[in-house]
Amino acid sequence: MQRTQFGGMACSIARTLDVIGEPWSPLILRDIYVGLTRFEQLQQDLGISRKVLAERLKWLVESAVLERRVYSDRPLRHEYVLTAKGLELCDLLLVMVRWGDRWTAGAAGPPVLYRHHACGEIAQVDLHCSHCDRPMHAGDVDVLPGPGSTPPPPTPTPTPPT
Amino acid sequence: MQRTQFGGMACSIARTLDVIGEPWSPLILRDIYVGLTRFEQLQQDLGISRKVLAERLKWLVESAVLERRVYSDRPLRHEYVLTAKGLELCDLLLVMVRWGDRWTAGAAGPPVLYRHHACGEIAQVDLHCSHCDRPMHAGDVDVLPGPGSTPPPPTPTPTPPT
Repeated sequence: MQRTQFGGMACSIARTLDVIGEPWSPLILRDIYVGLTRFEQLQQDLGISRKVLAERLKWLVESAVLERRVYSDRPLRHEYVLTAKGLELCDLLLVMVRWGDRWTAGAAGPPVLYRHHACGEIAQVDLHCSHCDRPMHAGDVDVLPGPGSTPPPPTPTPTPPT
Repeated sequence: MQRTQFGGMACSIARTLDVIGEPWSPLILRDIYVGLTRFEQLQQDLGISRKVLAERLKWLVESAVLERRVYSDRPLRHEYVLTAKGLELCDLLLVMVRWGDRWTAGAAGPPVLYRHHACGEIAQVDLHCSHCDRPMHAGDVDVLPGPGSTPPPPTPTPTPPT
């Protein structure tokens, strides 16, 4: 099956999905984020096929979201760790948690809690405007074309010498 | 192919992915969010197969993220609109944009800009702690089991009468 080229779309959403756009990759990120960094640990926790796991890990390493690192020389063993780019991608998981806790957790309550280092309290992420610091949600913005929105205008055809 | 039951995992990330866990659904959300609400518009913009689009829309309606609404009686025509649950899910898109603009946009710059209604400025979302209001990112939290983390403990086997 040919992979649709989401990465080539002039859209940061599509390009982000090109990195994590199927359910397994975010769950792999989640597991590595909480410390399950080895292939066997991931395979066992997710119940994913070894083939699919190996492919996803390879792609996440190629995308510079993960780094493959030696943790034992004898025998030679590797683990997967988040890069800075990968850790920032985990912010997306926090926002998924926020939505999932609110709309899918039901009476049982949140499966996982997050304690903020700065204040020591169980908290969730709130979305604020980077400019005015007030709440900023999908309903609070206008969407406008940006500098990278369209292919650059075609080079004008030079007038042939007369 | 059997669908993996992400919705059944005690994890708000997996449950959220159960709703939008493949590349097309977030892009369908994106399009409806910016006003492409009709089947033909979506099909044309995304270049997706009609079958896949119909399936995804059905699932998003079943998940109460979208509502199917009549916009013309004669001929009978429907469009898809975001529910409150769906609009909140679009917050995830804003956080994807933030990451994608930073890590994938390159020299061309952001494909799309977001103008915040409250201040009128082009801005992005920042993540803050719901408790102390300071920045809160994936590297700033401890992850703890919550009330919905595990199945309830098994009912003790009653001691057989002696």
